[in-house]
Amino acid sequence: MEITHNAINLKGIIPPTVTPLLSSGELDKKATERLTKHLLDGGVHGFFILGTTGEISSLKPSIKKELISLTCRIVDRAVPIIVGITHTALDSSLKFAKVAKDNGADYVVAAPPFFFPLDQQDITAYYTRLADLSPLPLFLYNFPAMTKCSIEPDTVAELSKHNNIVGIKDSSGNGVYFQKLLSVKRSNPEFSVFVGPEELLVQSVYSGADGAVAGGANIFPSLYVKLYEAAMAGDQETINRIQPIIMEISQKIYGNSSKSSSYLCGIKESLYFLGICESNICLPLVTVDAETKERIRNNLEKIIFKIKSLG
Amino acid sequence: MEITHNAINLKGIIPPTVTPLLSSGELDKKATERLTKHLLDGGVHGFFILGTTGEISSLKPSIKKELISLTCRIVDRAVPIIVGITHTALDSSLKFAKVAKDNGADYVVAAPPFFFPLDQQDITAYYTRLADLSPLPLFLYNFPAMTKCSIEPDTVAELSKHNNIVGIKDSSGNGVYFQKLLSVKRSNPEFSVFVGPEELLVQSVYSGADGAVAGGANIFPSLYVKLYEAAMAGDQETINRIQPIIMEISQKIYGNSSKSSSYLCGIKESLYFLGICESNICLPLVTVDAETKERIRNNLEKIIFKIKSLG
Amino acid sequence: MEITHNAINLKGIIPPTVTPLLSSGELDKKATERLTKHLLDGGVHGFFILGTTGEISSLKPSIKKELISLTCRIVDRAVPIIVGITHTALDSSLKFAKVAKDNGADYVVAAPPFFFPLDQQDITAYYTRLADLSPLPLFLYNFPAMTKCSIEPDTVAELSKHNNIVGIKDSSGNGVYFQKLLSVKRSNPEFSVFVGPEELLVQSVYSGADGAVAGGANIFPSLYVKLYEAAMAGDQETINRIQPIIMEISQKIYGNSSKSSSYLCGIKESLYFLGICESNICLPLVTVDAETKERIRNNLEKIIFKIKSLG
Amino acid sequence: MEITHNAINLKGIIPPTVTPLLSSGELDKKATERLTKHLLDGGVHGFFILGTTGEISSLKPSIKKELISLTCRIVDRAVPIIVGITHTALDSSLKFAKVAKDNGADYVVAAPPFFFPLDQQDITAYYTRLADLSPLPLFLYNFPAMTKCSIEPDTVAELSKHNNIVGIKDSSGNGVYFQKLLSVKRSNPEFSVFVGPEELLVQSVYSGADGAVAGGANIFPSLYVKLYEAAMAGDQETINRIQPIIMEISQKIYGNSSKSSSYLCGIKESLYFLGICESNICLPLVTVDAETKERIRNNLEKIIFKIKSLG
Repeated sequence: MEITHNAINLKGIIPPTVTPLLSSGELDKKATERLTKHLLDGGVHGFFILGTTGEISSLKPSIKKELISLTCRIVDRAVPIIVGITHTALDSSLKFAKVAKDNGADYVVAAPPFFFPLDQQDITAYYTRLADLSPLPLFLYNFPAMTKCSIEPDTVAELSKHNNIVGIKDSSGNGVYFQKLLSVKRSNPEFSVFVGPEELLVQSVYSGADGAVAGGANIFPSLYVKLYEAAMAGDQETINRIQPIIMEISQKIYGNSSKSSSYLCGIKESLYFLGICESNICLPLVTVDAETKERIRNNLEKIIFKIKSLG
Repeated sequence: MEITHNAINLKGIIPPTVTPLLSSGELDKKATERLTKHLLDGGVHGFFILGTTGEISSLKPSIKKELISLTCRIVDRAVPIIVGITHTALDSSLKFAKVAKDNGADYVVAAPPFFFPLDQQDITAYYTRLADLSPLPLFLYNFPAMTKCSIEPDTVAELSKHNNIVGIKDSSGNGVYFQKLLSVKRSNPEFSVFVGPEELLVQSVYSGADGAVAGGANIFPSLYVKLYEAAMAGDQETINRIQPIIMEISQKIYGNSSKSSSYLCGIKESLYFLGICESNICLPLVTVDAETKERIRNNLEKIIFKIKSLG
Repeated sequence: MEITHNAINLKGIIPPTVTPLLSSGELDKKATERLTKHLLDGGVHGFFILGTTGEISSLKPSIKKELISLTCRIVDRAVPIIVGITHTALDSSLKFAKVAKDNGADYVVAAPPFFFPLDQQDITAYYTRLADLSPLPLFLYNFPAMTKCSIEPDTVAELSKHNNIVGIKDSSGNGVYFQKLLSVKRSNPEFSVFVGPEELLVQSVYSGADGAVAGGANIFPSLYVKLYEAAMAGDQETINRIQPIIMEISQKIYGNSSKSSSYLCGIKESLYFLGICESNICLPLVTVDAETKERIRNNLEKIIFKIKSLG
Repeated sequence: MEITHNAINLKGIIPPTVTPLLSSGELDKKATERLTKHLLDGGVHGFFILGTTGEISSLKPSIKKELISLTCRIVDRAVPIIVGITHTALDSSLKFAKVAKDNGADYVVAAPPFFFPLDQQDITAYYTRLADLSPLPLFLYNFPAMTKCSIEPDTVAELSKHNNIVGIKDSSGNGVYFQKLLSVKRSNPEFSVFVGPEELLVQSVYSGADGAVAGGANIFPSLYVKLYEAAMAGDQETINRIQPIIMEISQKIYGNSSKSSSYLCGIKESLYFLGICESNICLPLVTVDAETKERIRNNLEKIIFKIKSLG
């Protein structure tokens, strides 16, 4: 009997976790533990490790293995774990899907291979093969700014029929595209649709999305959980109080400079301020300058004050 | 005493070799041997293995190791070998630089990491670290259509001062950019500048480039060697006879369809026709359809006839 | 005493009207009259003539003048009229701003000049001068797919302080960008923010936008008005019944083919089916083929049936 | 009897002239006369007025008319004149083609309409109609950085058969594309192919192009004429002495800053230094800052010194 998978246990705020690093470039295990507990304490509904925010593409295999193992052990099935396996070589993705499975993770997620420009036929063939061979149910990951290609809605509709493909995370920020994904979901309600950019959390959930892979939930997990719950409950008053703070995090913490690393440094610098991990990032990204770090900290203090004022 | 490296032994036609694959996806070792000898017989001046044409990003590590080892053994120092180590993770690139060194290769070449959008500061920091740690002299590799970033001429000028960075391969096809690279070379004549697109071989060599990493030299190595020699000698008559054939290969063999795999299938299908290797390619690229393959073969026959008519 | 303008009388559904054309290329005045009345009957809250949907860039000056004059006369101040004055030459934009004023229109709207790539300083300088000289209050128009540039949120914030700039229409489809515009509006509540893509009408209004410049309202004005009212009232049940139809219009009427003219032909062909105007479009756009037109009509019939079933 | 046109009287250096402007924004007629004579004295082989360098898109109709009339009168048939008629509305282009004809100009040139994204069928239909109706022979103008579309080589090949289309100016800077244009020319030798970027003058002429529309020839007309003649004669020694200066003009005069107006300000500031015209430019472009102007002047002095040293 064939089992068709779905991800109906997965809803809400799924932080794309940063990867805490020592200055040597190795995984900071203690910080990983602190971060994981910080997120569990904040009430997040799942983990997405080794995503773009997790610097998956920059990490060597040994760090990826350690991070999968450590996170799975600490979370200890309290909430579902999605493991990023994005890689340009299919075999390398599958190798980490197996590591994820062996450590008790629940799902894997992969963006399309991102070296060659791809057409929709390439994308369909690739995901079909990956899903055929993956030992864990697979999420698609749409992120054209990184991969140069978009997984078109018709392609998603076709792939959503594969019994080992359970959903999609869309980080395009493209509202019309996202509405088309929700059309796919209307035809196939068990197909999960998560939004990447947290600025769109409310409107996405309101429109029928299953949740948000919100980077800011690394810093303030309970804030994003509260916003998600308000969106689900149609509690417009709470939304009106939190959404301006979400935008302030977006504009003042992520939008700190024109550096490529701006978003990532915004999050890691904030976590450093909160005593969770160092702000080290991997090459090829280069960190922002000292003045910018100072500005991030100042803005963070103001944001923390506003969050506390929410009560 | 510090040794400053250069690549002055490297001039002329350096084919970016395809990676012959069995239908199982494993390396076709016999075909690799046939291809390598075909190229040596054709008089090529060096090898560039594991480039874009070699599908580096799609191959699993074991195939990359086998290919490096096998090619180095067969070439047996007859000509220099450049090994592609392009990867998004610096450690993974270095691992293969070591494999290249251990097998007796001469140079490595890396495109910038291609997942995150990068700024020039990122690119400079990345290449500096890579060159600091690489056991073999390093070529830069500019290919914006794949990597989303351009290594700007000022960045190249700065990196060219690093004593372990010996040159650049430019596959942008951007003529103005290439002239700016030649300005860098005028200030630093030992810095090697190779052009990617073979359509630009003549004008690039004529303008001062060191040679071409010509994909078509996989199929017709001696034709490209002859064209290179004509360009070096200013033999306009020979150029006028060969350049139209180069353009016909470009337009009728590579430009066979609108598929992403069009260029690669054009070369591999031609090599299959010549009895050198199967035309299998790796996911995520999907091969062209049967009708297109037929068209490639028909066009190839006409081109072979024209090459024979050159005498 | 200085008067600061705003557009607080402008809320809701503002169709970007098509320009009905005779096969000779001249304005079809009778069809323009039919279309205008069709929209007024449908309850639209304003008109946006000479936008992208109105083919402004392809029309000769005399047609633009006739259209402004005719529309103003028929609407007869029943609802506000915004006139598109987008042009690469500032003087040409101003000339039509004067025509709009002389005919009794209420606002003008201009996208940034779209030939040269522009930086934010250019955009600010251009709009400041245009607003200084415009005889009617000005809307900004963000449409990067057409103009190659984005009016960044910081630029919008600065321009929103100009006393003759009253709002912005955003056709980027970029959800994060739109949320940043709403942040601008939070600081300056009289600044109007309209969304272009009608697929985003509900979520935009729900998030605080003033309305939508919905292309589909050319065809079904009352449907979009009803959806707007439901969004304003938080009537989720009505939204759930209408939004799937909006997406069907988007995917089956606009997304009829890969032609550049797909969206425009979808609307004009539908209006032809409804007996409102011919489906003629201007060069450089070339119309879709007969088979596609047939498909549009078939899809339209199904959509009309669904709209009627709404009751 | 049908006459098939060609542009065989047009070869060599055709400067895309700047449009001298008073600070009021009106045409500076005296400066236009000075510039025109400066170019004639420098031995240019033709004029291309109202191109991108001439700010065609930013000028109001009356200035365009004055410039056509004035230039034609001063040149007085000494060399051919090409008039830019690029506009998004076909009728507006034709209106200026008639003005060009009436004033005795020889050719017109138009880029594709640049507001809507276009496909190749649109481009073909547009140029066919424009050529059918143009009273003067037409050049195509490929400039994807401005127009968002490329006139693909197959499209150029088809259009080159139209008896009123005589050639193409390519400002893409894409070397492979340009080689494909030269393939079109090999099949149709009377079809003229001009290169835009002057950095590519030598290699383009060497490869078979008819000449270059060199912006720098506004400043130093005889330098570019000398380089063209050297390229035609295969005089490598002269090329080796001039090409580095061409690159210095490109990098130090045009590449003066990251402003959108960098190239244009580089030329106009240089002409101001030479006493030919003011450096005023039109909105939407904003001029570079005072420090940059100073840097341009300093670099220009060094370049002038090097040119004088050529003898």
